[in-house]
Amino acid sequence: MVIFSDTPLSDDALCLMREGATPCSVIFSQNLAASVLAKSAPDPAFVTADIAFGQPDVESIRDSERLRWIHLTSAGFTRYDTPEFRQLVAQRDLIVTNSSSVYADACAEHVFAFMLAQSRQLPSALSTRVANGTPEWSRLRRAACSLHGRSLVILGFGAIGSALVKLLAPFNMHIVAMRRRPRGNEGVLIITPDQLPEALALADHVIDLLPDNPESRHFINAGLISSMKRGAIFYNIGRGTTVEQSALMEALGSGHLDAAWLDVTDPEPLPDGHPLLSTPNCFITPHTAGGHRNESETLERHFLENLRLFFHGSPLRDRVM
Amino acid sequence: MVIFSDTPLSDDALCLMREGATPCSVIFSQNLAASVLAKSAPDPAFVTADIAFGQPDVESIRDSERLRWIHLTSAGFTRYDTPEFRQLVAQRDLIVTNSSSVYADACAEHVFAFMLAQSRQLPSALSTRVANGTPEWSRLRRAACSLHGRSLVILGFGAIGSALVKLLAPFNMHIVAMRRRPRGNEGVLIITPDQLPEALALADHVIDLLPDNPESRHFINAGLISSMKRGAIFYNIGRGTTVEQSALMEALGSGHLDAAWLDVTDPEPLPDGHPLLSTPNCFITPHTAGGHRNESETLERHFLENLRLFFHGSPLRDRVM
Repeated sequence: MVIFSDTPLSDDALCLMREGATPCSVIFSQNLAASVLAKSAPDPAFVTADIAFGQPDVESIRDSERLRWIHLTSAGFTRYDTPEFRQLVAQRDLIVTNSSSVYADACAEHVFAFMLAQSRQLPSALSTRVANGTPEWSRLRRAACSLHGRSLVILGFGAIGSALVKLLAPFNMHIVAMRRRPRGNEGVLIITPDQLPEALALADHVIDLLPDNPESRHFINAGLISSMKRGAIFYNIGRGTTVEQSALMEALGSGHLDAAWLDVTDPEPLPDGHPLLSTPNCFITPHTAGGHRNESETLERHFLENLRLFFHGSPLRDRVM
Repeated sequence: MVIFSDTPLSDDALCLMREGATPCSVIFSQNLAASVLAKSAPDPAFVTADIAFGQPDVESIRDSERLRWIHLTSAGFTRYDTPEFRQLVAQRDLIVTNSSSVYADACAEHVFAFMLAQSRQLPSALSTRVANGTPEWSRLRRAACSLHGRSLVILGFGAIGSALVKLLAPFNMHIVAMRRRPRGNEGVLIITPDQLPEALALADHVIDLLPDNPESRHFINAGLISSMKRGAIFYNIGRGTTVEQSALMEALGSGHLDAAWLDVTDPEPLPDGHPLLSTPNCFITPHTAGGHRNESETLERHFLENLRLFFHGSPLRDRVM
């Protein structure tokens, strides 16, 4: 069997691949993707692959008749999430898995860091030297607010949401999550999109974990934002395209929302002069939520674990198609 | 019975005091303290007090023969922690309580916010717009590091440490705490000061929660810092005087310590030009860790709860002498 990889890997991860993929032979693309998120350019060697690891080009997949399984190195899979591609997958009986478990813990910790930084007012507190006992100091202390017992709505509930709920357990927050297709094993109260405005009206914190797809594009629009409680905090660790950014900006400017913490924007990065960059209650990290030390090795181990399952004919982890 | 209060309180907290202190009469000092941490100036009315709520002046306490109980509005009580004062307390059979439970949750969340902000590299990530796939972006993603399974040493274990350990439970960290007088009910492995260098050599995170007293002054000195693991992170939510700041600065400069997050310094605030202010891996908040919305009311409720216990002759909460 031939594994084709177009993923830029660390030396340690390459080692893992060489040792762990035996007895498959591994072809490393001449056209490595720029990152685990970026599409790779076509490579003629792809047609020999039984298994693809990375972000292979859709045309190459169409032309490759040997291919049986595609393991994506990202959690998002927007460029594959089209009716045409799903039809191809069905016709050719392909398996498509992604790497959502690889990034889930890091993403959950990232949004948790956002929540605590906001509740402890870190951006203001780290940038001032107000003296004990001054009115500015008292204001800063009073602005801090515990997460204990506060209410939270999570939009889109999968591996990240599940990891986050576990981390938040000691805070006894009131958590509900919106999921289009509830599975019954979520461990939190699941609501449908039509119940969302009512839930948002009560939420102190709103976390967007939605993937990018035609249903989610601008899902967080002016109407939905207006149904949020005054003073709520909005977080986006999903995809930038899920938010109508002009509406978000207006809500931040008017004080309807207290703050926004975004790891994703549309586009990325935001261009010079984009008004969100100068919105004082908007805090942006550059799509680093899933990153973690040894990311490349975690990614590789996750693939190799699935490779073992694949050889045993067992169900693969993180199967998306 | 007369309660004397020198604490600046919010209107809501004043209301609580007026309603909850019945049948005591409450005298509000003409010389309110600048904050819940600051010493108040003497007030002649103090001599009539049976109970003092705030930060009363030590001389006034000495002169006040009716006084039976002093409830301090801070967690720290350095200005009362002298052999002379303890002798006075013993001679006059006074009760001294502090407000450590009032601030414990907020302090625990503050240091937790520090830990997650550090592990998710928030200071760097919030100040850059590096594009996906660039080497800078990959470096930033790789610098992030989970708290899961990491090791932690807590110096000084009381109400804050106990609250923090509960919050950290989902991270399965390896936690040991140093406490001079172990009580056996800590719920974590307690070590003594002589075991500390060995524990520090293994710790990824070191949290200083020590109060200020003669034993703790410059406890975190060059020697102790050199026993810390290379790349460790140091946090101080205790008191600034517990750290030999020049040694800390040197360890931050040499890279022996990866970063320091301080809510307390010596003095507060640090003066213009103090080298810690321009140390890029040192992050300082201005003694806001205990602050929280409705702090004044929480403080008042805690006092009133103790007042009920006092009238029932039950043991008071947070008794320190």
